[in-house]
Parts: sequence; structure tokens; C-alpha cells
Amino acid sequence: MNQPPQQNSDHGPIDVVIMAAGKGTRMKSRLPKVLHRLGGRALLAHVAGTAARIGARDVVVVTGHGADQVEASMAGGIGDASLRFARQEPQLGTGHAVQQAAPLLADDGTVVVLSGDVPLIGEETLRALVAASAGGKLALLTIEFDDPAGYGRVIRAAGSGGLQGEVQAVVEHKDATEAQRAVREIYSGVMAVPARLLKGWLGRLDNRNAQGEYYLTDVVKFAAADGVPVVAHVTTDALQVAGINSPAQLAALERAWQLRQANALMEQGVRLADPARFDLRGTLECAGDVEIDVNCVFEGAVSLGEGVRIGANCVIANARIEAGAVIHPFTHIEGEKAGVTVGAGALIGPFARLRPGAQLGAEVHIGNFVEVKNSTLAAGAKANHLAYLGDATVGERVNYGAGSITANYDGANKHRTVIGDDVHVGSNCVLVAPITIGAGGTIGGGSTINKSTEPGALTVARSKAVSFPNWKRPQKKPKA
Amino acid sequence: MNQPPQQNSDHGPIDVVIMAAGKGTRMKSRLPKVLHRLGGRALLAHVAGTAARIGARDVVVVTGHGADQVEASMAGGIGDASLRFARQEPQLGTGHAVQQAAPLLADDGTVVVLSGDVPLIGEETLRALVAASAGGKLALLTIEFDDPAGYGRVIRAAGSGGLQGEVQAVVEHKDATEAQRAVREIYSGVMAVPARLLKGWLGRLDNRNAQGEYYLTDVVKFAAADGVPVVAHVTTDALQVAGINSPAQLAALERAWQLRQANALMEQGVRLADPARFDLRGTLECAGDVEIDVNCVFEGAVSLGEGVRIGANCVIANARIEAGAVIHPFTHIEGEKAGVTVGAGALIGPFARLRPGAQLGAEVHIGNFVEVKNSTLAAGAKANHLAYLGDATVGERVNYGAGSITANYDGANKHRTVIGDDVHVGSNCVLVAPITIGAGGTIGGGSTINKSTEPGALTVARSKAVSFPNWKRPQKKPKA
Amino acid sequence: MNQPPQQNSDHGPIDVVIMAAGKGTRMKSRLPKVLHRLGGRALLAHVAGTAARIGARDVVVVTGHGADQVEASMAGGIGDASLRFARQEPQLGTGHAVQQAAPLLADDGTVVVLSGDVPLIGEETLRALVAASAGGKLALLTIEFDDPAGYGRVIRAAGSGGLQGEVQAVVEHKDATEAQRAVREIYSGVMAVPARLLKGWLGRLDNRNAQGEYYLTDVVKFAAADGVPVVAHVTTDALQVAGINSPAQLAALERAWQLRQANALMEQGVRLADPARFDLRGTLECAGDVEIDVNCVFEGAVSLGEGVRIGANCVIANARIEAGAVIHPFTHIEGEKAGVTVGAGALIGPFARLRPGAQLGAEVHIGNFVEVKNSTLAAGAKANHLAYLGDATVGERVNYGAGSITANYDGANKHRTVIGDDVHVGSNCVLVAPITIGAGGTIGGGSTINKSTEPGALTVARSKAVSFPNWKRPQKKPKA
Repeated sequence: MNQPPQQNSDHGPIDVVIMAAGKGTRMKSRLPKVLHRLGGRALLAHVAGTAARIGARDVVVVTGHGADQVEASMAGGIGDASLRFARQEPQLGTGHAVQQAAPLLADDGTVVVLSGDVPLIGEETLRALVAASAGGKLALLTIEFDDPAGYGRVIRAAGSGGLQGEVQAVVEHKDATEAQRAVREIYSGVMAVPARLLKGWLGRLDNRNAQGEYYLTDVVKFAAADGVPVVAHVTTDALQVAGINSPAQLAALERAWQLRQANALMEQGVRLADPARFDLRGTLECAGDVEIDVNCVFEGAVSLGEGVRIGANCVIANARIEAGAVIHPFTHIEGEKAGVTVGAGALIGPFARLRPGAQLGAEVHIGNFVEVKNSTLAAGAKANHLAYLGDATVGERVNYGAGSITANYDGANKHRTVIGDDVHVGSNCVLVAPITIGAGGTIGGGSTINKSTEPGALTVARSKAVSFPNWKRPQKKPKA
Repeated sequence: MNQPPQQNSDHGPIDVVIMAAGKGTRMKSRLPKVLHRLGGRALLAHVAGTAARIGARDVVVVTGHGADQVEASMAGGIGDASLRFARQEPQLGTGHAVQQAAPLLADDGTVVVLSGDVPLIGEETLRALVAASAGGKLALLTIEFDDPAGYGRVIRAAGSGGLQGEVQAVVEHKDATEAQRAVREIYSGVMAVPARLLKGWLGRLDNRNAQGEYYLTDVVKFAAADGVPVVAHVTTDALQVAGINSPAQLAALERAWQLRQANALMEQGVRLADPARFDLRGTLECAGDVEIDVNCVFEGAVSLGEGVRIGANCVIANARIEAGAVIHPFTHIEGEKAGVTVGAGALIGPFARLRPGAQLGAEVHIGNFVEVKNSTLAAGAKANHLAYLGDATVGERVNYGAGSITANYDGANKHRTVIGDDVHVGSNCVLVAPITIGAGGTIGGGSTINKSTEPGALTVARSKAVSFPNWKRPQKKPKA
Repeated sequence: MNQPPQQNSDHGPIDVVIMAAGKGTRMKSRLPKVLHRLGGRALLAHVAGTAARIGARDVVVVTGHGADQVEASMAGGIGDASLRFARQEPQLGTGHAVQQAAPLLADDGTVVVLSGDVPLIGEETLRALVAASAGGKLALLTIEFDDPAGYGRVIRAAGSGGLQGEVQAVVEHKDATEAQRAVREIYSGVMAVPARLLKGWLGRLDNRNAQGEYYLTDVVKFAAADGVPVVAHVTTDALQVAGINSPAQLAALERAWQLRQANALMEQGVRLADPARFDLRGTLECAGDVEIDVNCVFEGAVSLGEGVRIGANCVIANARIEAGAVIHPFTHIEGEKAGVTVGAGALIGPFARLRPGAQLGAEVHIGNFVEVKNSTLAAGAKANHLAYLGDATVGERVNYGAGSITANYDGANKHRTVIGDDVHVGSNCVLVAPITIGAGGTIGGGSTINKSTEPGALTVARSKAVSFPNWKRPQKKPKA
């Protein structure tokens, strides 16, 4: 799926450095900052995915706080890119971070510096930035903020005005003069620069500044001094450069991300009852005329067929729901490695729970307070009320009665229940697995069945009712 | 409920043309655009309802894409108005659409042209527009937009400024000059005009313009040429003229509509915990001191009595809930043609489901994981835990035990269960219908009962327990 | 927890008058206005709590409409403050209200006048206001509104401009001139003033004004006339001075309050999936790394241990949830006086309901459609499916089968079920209390057990299954 590494002669192969060493003190969490999740996915994974999509050759992740955990989180690699880690301990600034990565960077590439806590940086933006760096230039991604406090200001040649003048320096907020603080254009933390230039400048960084840190932004001064052109690529999309430093910022970016996903789905024709009450933490593929009511949450990989309707307040993970199925409100579908399939025209819920390995055929009905786990239900089977189907194979058109249970667990092992086509299981039955109910059979209500039954037979395990006339009920005891 | 057709001598009877032929390509849906729903009701039905409320005599709906489906959707008619359809095939523009309707329009009326995809046009606005057309004038509904791109601009006499000058033309965006595009006043698509004038102008339309279509807006030029006064009625309520072209626009208008409904209810005294998490798709009548918690959805016709409280996350359709009843969170009430009644002081939920035909008397309690369908429960009856009551008649003060089931379906037919007053049904019982449990009787826990029982009797169907001391349980098998 | 009454020599002890006599006509409610709830707590209780936190010595609540109900609502007192009521009947204005309180106020204090329907007035703001009144001054809390219509305007010395001039009067909207109505600084209804000054001025009030009421604001004129300095303490926090007059205002302030609470929790490190879909009506204590998914509601006193995760759409009241527990979506936990405890590492839900007195040990699992009430489950016990545990004592590692019920109610009294350690209860069992299942015992599926069983025994109450081959099922009857 990823593109092969680019060999564009203008800028050389793209190599990416991702800064992921920070602690994120304001997150007040044991989890390293870049492992916090946006849309169900670690911040770092968002950035790494974007690196893969721009065709990165080498990706170097600079780790520090929680380095083991951060590195372990990337065990799956980054698409076709080569992935390596550079440890930054202690953390002495952004320049120091890139210094740790430098030995792992080839000289012939263009280096793109990204932040692991700026998750929504866009592929097109990075391509444009890299293009801007072509021909041996330093390209900075910048943006104008109404309130630039705290950010590094982009200082352009005097008298040029606006966003037109030549970039001369980036000055960190704490080091900026009053006049410089009035500048609203800020450096996003993202740059693209030929590796050989970057490496030369990294050796010249010092920490004589307000924070006593090695600033990566000092390379701008060196570029200016060396006569290397510094170009700013100005974005207007604040989401792309938004960093996460606190739970409040994470929540705000989560909402922005969700709204963006909602809009993309609506653009495809999906009808969302309320885009502000929609959460997708993974991927959602939708055919035509899908309707999703308020307050639904989707996780993992979910696909919805033509005309599927999802009722209010559903939570659905790792499931394939086929055309025309209707998922009523308060349905919880939770596939994991073993996904859940809901067949065409099925009716599910309300208050249904489908667990891993639930495989429902066409026109299956699963009603209220019914749980299905690791079971296959053939076309037209129904379990409409208060029932449990676990480790069961259920035939076509089976009617599984209210309150009936597959006793699949003997306290030590799980066993399978097989229910043939056209079986009717009465109410409040217990089918003690392993057991087979022969096709066309009927199980009388209230029966506990622990031996397999013949096809076509009616099987009942039931005590005779005994009546005691004029029975006197217990009386309410006086309170002590 | 609708007013009789108006016979106002100033403007003649009102006849309405509703444009409903468009495909709505951007909806990316098989459903014709005007059949998409806002607040649970087709866009076209909103417009038709408004036409009825202004006392329309004749309503002509111009259909095209999905004409059969659109026409079928209006099988119920439009109040007292006469309803007819005019097919527009192919669709050659708005003027062409009205041309198809013209033969069905009488000469003595005032024609109001509405769009089937502009659902929130207001009754008062239309009355004012019709009044503005009185005395043989062409009246256009206009509005100023900050971003008028894409809309037909209202061109007024030069030098007049603002919204005061005489209207000389409406120029479609694609045909407008740069200067005309700077105009922020746009034509909403809604006009009122005497039928005899309109009919004359329709014959003079041509399609020599950027889109090669017959524009209805060209009538403005003809009016000016003929010395017929053209008046603009300027609205400031953008919702009323908002058209639906995409799922995103539909969702945005849905939210605006829901907020408007929420505000109207709050104005009456209803207390909503969060007006932004409230959905009403139908009608909601509320007596005093009703409280509705977050994230509730109401559908169809629902009425809530004095002091009713609805907990968080309830979905309620077609129900009458009487004074003082409390509906706990996660309750799903779903009346259909057979509505649901919840008696005064009843306690329902959480996790209760009331289905069509559930008729609950005063002080009835329905607890968690209980389903009631097509059943009548008399005052004070209780089913508090994990139970199913289907096709049952339940007497006063009955206590229906946890896990008990009415086995109402023998695999072929549904049968009725009758439970007399003051009966106690134990836990996990099955009552096999048809059956009557006599008043005051008791059914022992775990009993399956398939014959009617006498009043006052204790009836038990239960096997004797047998114990096997020092029983050795199955051992967990080693994994293969 | 409250501070002792302050004895600051600059301003004397603080005594508070809370105006709580109004009807709140626009609320359209039988409930007196100040008893409507914000964040689950009466408006008046918010104000009273703030009075306690600023160390009030005496608090006088002026009651009128619904006086009995309002006074009863404060039966718990106000921290260490002395609480008294003054009845205002009829209601003749704000000045008249304070006149009723005056006899209950000592001469040596500083009186702070608050409104019972302005719930979010802040402790720090009041301390600053009191400080501003020190040395014998009248201090008014004021704010600038973009739209001041309806509020009393603060009239300052001519030519002074802005918020700097000396305050000369407060003029009610209805009495204000056109020029005065242009003033955007308004009086919030909150003042601090030495009691001896206030008492003198109260006697001079008259009702010669547009509304025929005794205005408290007239004291400003008297102060000016008497040469008493009038100082305005200007706040910029509109929430603190926001009053409640309608359900819409109540809902808007509720949202603002909830967002403020959400922000405070996020500041502590709590991760909220959507701060706009979070409701806290009480107190929520969170240890580190707590995650709360969308659309959860918390009521009463809830504490969440380290790493607790709360799934979407949970409603949780009066519960302590210990470290590492996971609460799946759609879980309803409802402690009351008897709270609910969920032990460390427990897994609860989805669709679980924990009722008062549910005490769950470490690693307990409560699954879907399971209800637990007034029961203790020791470490490692599991009830995963469709079950009821009421008035039960459940030992360690017990496996409580799907569909099983404790029959704790004999129709008159509740009885206890005791289940020993390591017991396995099969599916669809009924345990008829009072009963003890001996440790290590097993109850076969489908058994109804009404006598205690020995430790280690397998106990089964089950009928033998009988089969009828080639059984012919009932046929569907033709419809009449």
C-alpha cells in the first residue's frame, strides 16, 4: 500500500526523524506522551504512518522517556521504511534530539523532522515542504497564530512585512524580544533540509539561551550565515501543527479529528444523525445509503454494507455488517482477532451483545438481552430474548427460546453445542455441551438436556406440576 | 386541523408548486433527495405540511427522479389541499419544472413556488410573501448571505444601495458578472405571484445561459419588462431558506432543527439536561415539571405527564407516559401502531424494553433486562429482573419472578397467558401458554407450568435434588 | 472542612443574606426556583456552600414562594455558619427582601448579599469584594455585558469613562434613560457592605419607580449622598454572575458548569474522550491514568482508582472503583446510602447493573445482563451472563452460571444466599434462600435448590429427558 521510497533527483530520498523522547509532564500520566491515543491510535503511530505515506526511506525515532515502551509500540514497523531508534538521555533540547539521530542518517537524503506529539501533520503538506527544500534549501513549516505565546517566532527580513520576507531566524519565545514576540508567524517544529547541510549545522549548536537547551531552530541562523536559502512553507491548517501537551489538548484534537472523519464519511454519502456525536477509532468502510444514529462508537476495522442502519448508542468493534442489516439501539458488537459477521438483512438488538467469533448468517435475528460468542448461526436463525449462545453451531431457521442457555463450560473446558436446522428450543432450556440437537427437533420449555437428541423428536425433561390448594404464603416479619 | 383554503380577495386562493424532481447527486443515495428525513420526516413532507398550514387550495408536486417513490410517499395527501403531481422528465431547469406544473394551476390563484429540499420554510414567512404579492405583484423571498457564492443574486436598481432599490433581475451565479457576484442578497428559490402572470411568463423562458437550462428566475426580467412590480421580502432566518444538497448539510440542518425543538420545549418548562443531546423525530407533548436527561431520542408521538422523569440514554417511540412515572436510563420503549402506555407512578428500567402493545397500569415496576410485548399489566404489578412477558394479561400486584418467561409461541401460533391478581410467580419459571394462573396463586421457582392453576394454590413442578458427595470435577484438558 | 468564621479587623465578621423568595415564573415549574438543580445540586445549595467557604458567621436566607420547601431543603445547615430564615411575603423587591433579613443581622458584621439563583458566584470573587468593602465602603460586584438589556446599569461620574469613574448610582433597566441604557457595566446583584450602614439605608428605601418595588440598588444613592465611598469590583467571569430564570438558562449554565468540571479533571490528568459529553452531579475523585469514554454520567460520590477505564455510556452513582478495574460500556452502577465497591482489576459489563450494597472483590467479573444487589462477591468470583445475585454472599473464585437466580424473596421477606469458595453453579439454576451452598460444591445446570448442600458435593435437581420421535409440531392457524 505504501509507495516505494522516492528517488526524486531534486531532493533525494526522504528520511524522517521523529522526536519522541519527551515526558509530557502536563499529561500527568505514566504513559509516555507519544503513546497517548488519538482516534484509538498512538500519537506516534499517526506520525509514523504519515512518514510511510510520503515514502520515507529511513525513519529514526528519537526516544527517551519510556523509551522501551515507545520502541516496543513500534514493533510492527513503518510500512516499507527502515525503522531505527536513537536514544536521547538526558533530554537537552530539540537540537540535541536530532544530534542523536544524525549518525543514523545517510548523507544523500532530505531529512524531514517531525514531532511524535503532533499527530495530524498531513501528507500533502510534507510533500510540499520537501519540494520547497529541493535544490539545497532549508524549508520550515510555519503558521500564523492569533496568540503565538510560547511558540518560536519566525523572524523575517526587516521591512518586508507579512509572510513575504526572507527568513532570518527562529527565536524561541523565552529568548524573544518584545518586538519579536509581536510576530504572529511561528515555527511548527517541522522542517525539511538536505542531510548534509543539517549534519554540518548540528555540530555547531550550543545551549547559550534562556532554557539552557540545544535548539534545533538555531540551524536557521547557520543557514542564513552560510548563504543557504531558508524558505517558509506557510500552512493555514492549525490542526496539522497542533501538538499535544495536556489531556485538554488531547481531547480537543480528538474532537477535531473525529469531526474530520465524520465529514469525510458524509462526503461519501454516509448519513450521520449528529457528526458531533460520532467516534471512529479505526477504519469504517461504508457502502451506499448507510445511516448511523447518534452517539455510536466504532473501533478497529468495521465495514457496513449497502443500506445498513445503526441505531443510537451502539458500540461496534471489528465487525462486518452486510447489506440491509439493521442494528437496533444499545447493541454492543465486539469482535477482536476473531471478528464478528452479521449477515445480510439481519436484525440485531436492542440490547444485544455479539462477542468474538459470532458469525451470523442472512436474516438472523438476535434480540434483547441475548449474548452470542464464538458461535455460527445459519440463515434465518432467531434468538430473540434473554439467551446465551456460546460455542454453538446453529442451523437454519432455528428458533432458540427465551431464557435458554448453552452450558458450554463444565468448569474446566469449553464444549460445543450443535443445533440442527429447523430446531425449536423452548424457553429457559439448558443445553449441556457437548451435545447435538438433531435437525427438526423440538426441546420442550424448561428442559435441561445433556444427551444428544434425534432429528424430528420432541424432547422434554420436565417434572410434573403438583398443586397445594389454599396455600398460605409466608408473612412479612415485623422489623426487629 | 388545517385552515380552510383562503379566499382573500387581495391575492386570491393560494396554490403551491413544490419542486421535487431533483436527483440530489451529492447525497450519493438511492433515495430521491426530497425523501431524506429531517427530524424523522421526509424533507418533502415538511414542505407539504407548511403548504397545508398556509391554507393551500391546490398543491402540485413536480416529480422526476424517483417519481414513483416520491409520489407514493405522499399517499396520505396534504390536509385539505388538493394534491396533484406533474412529471418533469428530463429535468431542464427550475423554469421547466414550473412549466410542467402550469397546466394544473388555475388562473385565479396566487402561486407559491417552494422547493422540496428546503424543509424549514416558515408559515409566517410565506403568509408575508403572499401578502407582498397582493395586487398583482411578483414577490421574491430573499436573504443576505455573507458568502453568496453559488446562489442567484438579486439585482436592484443602480445607486439605490442596500436592500431598498427596485428589483430588476435575479442572475444565476454562473451567469453573473464580477460586480453582480459581489451582491450578497440572494434569491431563496421561493416566490409568490399571481397565476395568470406566471403562466404568461413561463411561455417566454429560454435556455440561452451558462447552464443551458430554463431558469424560473428569468420571470423577474419579464416582470420588469412588463411593468409588473417586483418586491423582495427579505428574511434574516437562514434556516428557513437552507437547502439540502449533501449529507453534511442534512446533518447540520438536523442539528439546527433539533435545537429549535429543544428550545421550544424548554420555553414550555421542560427541563433538558443538554439541549445539544436531545432528538425528537415526531411530536412530544409534555405536562409540567418534566425532566429529560442527556442523550434521549423520541420518535413518533410521545406524551409525558406531569413530573415524568426520563433518564439518560433512553429511546422512546409512540408512548404515553403518565404523571410521576420514572423512566430509568437505558430504557427502550418502542410503540408502533400499537402504542405503549406507562401508568402513573410506574418505575421502568434501567435496561427495560417495552414493545408494541405494552400497557402498564399505575405503579407498575419493570426492571432490568425485562421485555414486555403486547401485554397488559394491572396496577402494582412487578417484573423486576430478567424476564419476558409476551401476550400476557397480568393482574394487580402480581410479582413476576426473575428469569421467568411466558412461552407464548409454540413454533406456529402465539397464545395468551393470564395471570390473576396477587399471583406470585417464582424465579426461572416457564408459563406455557395458553394458560391461566388463578388469582392469589403461587408458582414455585424453577417450575415449568403448562396447565392452568387454581386460585390460591401453590403449584410447583420441581425435581428432587440429588447430591453426590466428594464429586470430582472435570479437569482442564491440556491444549493440543 | 470549612474555615472558622473570619475575624478580620478590616471588615468584621462576614454575614450573608441569600435572596431565595422568588417564584421563577419563567421556569414554569411547581418547584421553587432556587431548588432547581445545577450539577445535581439545588441552586441555593451552591450559593450556601460558597457562603460557608468564605467563612460566613450568620447566613440569613430570605424565603417567600415555596418557603416551607426551600427551608426544608436546608435542613442540613450550612457548615459552621448559623442559619436562619426570614420570610418575605409578599415580595416587594430586592430592598424589601433585605429589609426582612435586617433584624437578624448583627451590627458589627459586613453583609454580603447573594442571590439564590446565581449559583456559580466564586469564593475568591467574594473575598475580593469583601476586602473592597473594608474600611466602611459599599462594594458592588459589577460586570460589562455586550448586551446589558434588562440589567441595572452602573452609573459612574461623568467624563470618567470606562470602568474608572466613581460609582454614583445603579439604575434599573426600566427606570434608565436612553443614555443610561447605553452603559454596558451592570450590577450583578451581589454587594458587600458594613451592616450598620446597610441597616441605616434600608429604612430610607421607597418604591417610587417604574416597577413600584423597593430596590436594594437605591442604597448606592444613599451612600453617595452620605459620602460613603462606593467601589465596584469588576469581574470578567460572566458565569459567576449568571442568574437562572428559565429552563434554557438553566441548561446553558449546566453545560458551562459541566465543562468547567471536565476541564478541572483533565487538568488533574483525567482523560475524557469528549468533555462536551461528560456529566458530573456530585464529586469525582480520580487517581492517575483514569480514562472516561464518551457520554458517561456520574452522580453522588464516586472515586476511581489508578488506571480505571470507564467505557462509553455508563451511568455511575455513589461508587468506589479500585485500581485497574475496567467498566465496559452500558454499565449502570447505582449506589445509594449503601454504596457500591468494585475491587481492583475487576471487569464489569457491558450491560451490567450494580445496585446498592454490591461489594465486589478484586478481579471479580460481572458480565452482560447481570444484576447484583446487596451482595458481597469475594475475589475472583464471576457471574458473566444473564444472572441475578441479590442478598448473597459469594465466596472466592465462584463461577455463577448463566441465567442463574438467587430467589431471595419469598413474597414477604428477603433471605440470604451463601455460596462457598470455589463453588460452581450451573446455568439457569434457582437457589431458594435461605440457603448455603458448601464450598467447592457444584450445582448442576437447570437445578432448583431449596436446601443447603454439603461442601464438595455435586447436587442436581433434574428430570429425566423423554423423547417422542417424529413429533408433529403445531400448525400455524389460518387467520380468522
